[in-house]
Amino acid sequence: MMPGLRLPDPLLAKRIEESACARDSVVLPTDRFGDWLTERRRAQWQEVRRVPLTALRGWDFESDTGNLVHASGRFFAVEGLAVRTDTGPVRRWRQPIVNQPEIGVLGIAVREIDGVLHCLMQAKVEPGNVNGVQLSPTVQATKSNYTGVHGGAPVPYLEHFRDAEPSAVIADVLQSEQGSWFYRKRNRNMVVEVGPEVEAVDGFCWLTLGQVLDLLRVDNLVSMDARTVLSCVPLGSGEPDRVGDDFASALALSGDPAAGGLHTTTEVLSWITDMQARREMDARRVPLDEVDGWTRGDWSISHDKGRFFSVIGVDVEAAGREVAAWQQPLIRPHGTGVATLLVRRFGGVLHALLNARVEAGYLDVVELAPTVQCTPGNYVDLPPGSLPPFLDIARAARADQVRFDAELSEEGGRFHHARTRYGIVEVGTGVADTEPPDYRWLTLHQLAGLLQHSHYVNVQARTLVACLLGLR
Amino acid sequence: MMPGLRLPDPLLAKRIEESACARDSVVLPTDRFGDWLTERRRAQWQEVRRVPLTALRGWDFESDTGNLVHASGRFFAVEGLAVRTDTGPVRRWRQPIVNQPEIGVLGIAVREIDGVLHCLMQAKVEPGNVNGVQLSPTVQATKSNYTGVHGGAPVPYLEHFRDAEPSAVIADVLQSEQGSWFYRKRNRNMVVEVGPEVEAVDGFCWLTLGQVLDLLRVDNLVSMDARTVLSCVPLGSGEPDRVGDDFASALALSGDPAAGGLHTTTEVLSWITDMQARREMDARRVPLDEVDGWTRGDWSISHDKGRFFSVIGVDVEAAGREVAAWQQPLIRPHGTGVATLLVRRFGGVLHALLNARVEAGYLDVVELAPTVQCTPGNYVDLPPGSLPPFLDIARAARADQVRFDAELSEEGGRFHHARTRYGIVEVGTGVADTEPPDYRWLTLHQLAGLLQHSHYVNVQARTLVACLLGLR
Repeated sequence: MMPGLRLPDPLLAKRIEESACARDSVVLPTDRFGDWLTERRRAQWQEVRRVPLTALRGWDFESDTGNLVHASGRFFAVEGLAVRTDTGPVRRWRQPIVNQPEIGVLGIAVREIDGVLHCLMQAKVEPGNVNGVQLSPTVQATKSNYTGVHGGAPVPYLEHFRDAEPSAVIADVLQSEQGSWFYRKRNRNMVVEVGPEVEAVDGFCWLTLGQVLDLLRVDNLVSMDARTVLSCVPLGSGEPDRVGDDFASALALSGDPAAGGLHTTTEVLSWITDMQARREMDARRVPLDEVDGWTRGDWSISHDKGRFFSVIGVDVEAAGREVAAWQQPLIRPHGTGVATLLVRRFGGVLHALLNARVEAGYLDVVELAPTVQCTPGNYVDLPPGSLPPFLDIARAARADQVRFDAELSEEGGRFHHARTRYGIVEVGTGVADTEPPDYRWLTLHQLAGLLQHSHYVNVQARTLVACLLGLR
Repeated sequence: MMPGLRLPDPLLAKRIEESACARDSVVLPTDRFGDWLTERRRAQWQEVRRVPLTALRGWDFESDTGNLVHASGRFFAVEGLAVRTDTGPVRRWRQPIVNQPEIGVLGIAVREIDGVLHCLMQAKVEPGNVNGVQLSPTVQATKSNYTGVHGGAPVPYLEHFRDAEPSAVIADVLQSEQGSWFYRKRNRNMVVEVGPEVEAVDGFCWLTLGQVLDLLRVDNLVSMDARTVLSCVPLGSGEPDRVGDDFASALALSGDPAAGGLHTTTEVLSWITDMQARREMDARRVPLDEVDGWTRGDWSISHDKGRFFSVIGVDVEAAGREVAAWQQPLIRPHGTGVATLLVRRFGGVLHALLNARVEAGYLDVVELAPTVQCTPGNYVDLPPGSLPPFLDIARAARADQVRFDAELSEEGGRFHHARTRYGIVEVGTGVADTEPPDYRWLTLHQLAGLLQHSHYVNVQARTLVACLLGLR
């Protein structure tokens, strides 16, 4: 290679691997993390009170459309969506949807401390969180945030992402969020290495990647925004000294391109292309007033049968973030979601069963979702047999098959008490021996390759990729 | 690797390379290709006659929107688009746009003959072609085509793409088309290997990849659809026996990941993400009746200053395709387009200067375009200094800098006499030493990586990637 030309940093993968293997740290030892969190929960109090939508300060129902919009015209709006598709038990419907066209930044800063990369994590409170503070990325900023539309304080550490040196960027990719609740929302997921001059201010702490991955097992602790960024870290799946017949070995081989897989990567890309080309999804923005089957009351916009979600209004008073008091709408899902990834060893290599899923709010037609992703309560009015494939297998899993099981929250800045039970269940011969057309067994190596690009892996599957990395 | 698991075919790259190096073939020797083409032009006559839009059989202006639609509701429609963006000399406008939501297939079948892969190419006539027959992919089929909406004959060879064995697929990716003329149009670009039972029927011929790449130098011969599929072939850029200081060596190194580049691939992806996140583009479909600045006459829909393009109607009578006679609208651009790729050697490795370009019809905000892409005539009313960057350098190129120069057509099924002058110009020190924010020097290896995925490289840049591969 000539001077002036560059190759990928050959040491980076090793340094990330070492950070993932470091399950403890002298900076903030794991056995002191609980105290730190308790202290943050004390310091960052928040009071959230429901208020009528009609009285929401700064927000109004637009007279000609009925859309719920902010007076500044920014942040986000609740509008209507008219959907027509060719798959699933219901193929035509209208629904409220959150439209937030601006692309925000979700960034984790990493820094070498005592020779090991540490992630700068933030204790962040969000109005929709079930438990106040959750462990969040270094930076979570909407464009409104960083252009100062809300008139709040500047976002700490934002400059390290906004003005990042190209060579300091470890990951930087737009990823979608919930396609059932958001219209074409995506955020910029970034990991950036910073120098020793960057210190953790109040409310922030340095944790190794291994420590953060371990904390994923704690219910409702690691936030959705942290999980999606973690899934984009270019991390293998461990290199055990000897290849054995245990789960860790199968996981390690799954991250190794030389180990092979049931399908080549060309075949996986071709399958995704086929699903994009075959499935039909027409999602058209319509005025919220024209969404039938939903009723707007003073306190909420709700589905007439009480399904799916409601739009509610909240008044928030908080310490420890940019603005001390505000009001905003939130999406309140009805019922806890289920997201399960079935995994299975083929030839000693762990594979995960992904579903090419159509959601109305995706920019493109399909993205890869966990094997099972649903809110069972939404199916009670549908004919028997409408329940999603593999839900029965996920539910019937024996304890020794369950590799991961935790309740984790979706983003508390837009969703109110949105809980999902995330699970990784290992299955054996007999499950999806022949894959249904919209399911494929993928290796972790293939998922990691897809995660370098936008719009392949949905936000629920990204959480489960992070959880899978934590099992190494 | 365990039995049942698979790795990418290690021989495939070599076989493709050999086909690209084969500049002649016994199947259809290059010196007999001209006769074959002449014969096809005789056999596949076509008569195209302009007719008033108001008299277009099967097409109507919808009463409430003014959109020009087909009676079946399928094929495509001419609608309006209201655009707001934050870049370029004009930042707010309305325009007619072709909306064709269905995803078609553009496929090239390849087959080993005498130990060398040959491409099954088709002599295809399109109503908008300047010269009748062009050399096209094996299959060009809209969903309407293959579901038989038009009532025509079945599309030959389509089954090899529709029902392809996964292991026979060499490339399969959705790629966008002209974002100034199409609303979110994309086609499925496929290359599939077939067996010896597949023969070339009348109107088709087998050519090596090297023969097809050489034919790119002939004006208006290799069709846009063929060029875009060729750009997706996973082909390196040649391996000269010795690395010299000539252009071929620089091109070969450009396809070699180990040779390095000015930017790492992580940096290139981060730059694209940054452009996607920073640029704003709001493109909203509106009724064609509400497009101001354009006038609908009996014979055309045209811009009031005669710029950009017109929508016209044609009556077509043709032999040698599915339907013998039909009428349809076409987009007729005003003036010949210019698409130039500046290339430069850094450390002996050839780099191409790509532009992160915003077009109103892209699914996402930006795609990578050639260094220069414009129709100079559209700029005459704009203030001096509005001409695109690098156009002056492209125009001032000395003969010895011009590595490629040909006039090639855009798709004749939708566009009438849409010609673009495609050029590859080699520049030296002093040109874009410091890259403007929306330009980057990329290696061919990096472009090939991006081309495995959708929505990174626009259709004009894909043509130039194919042309660059032809210089090997």
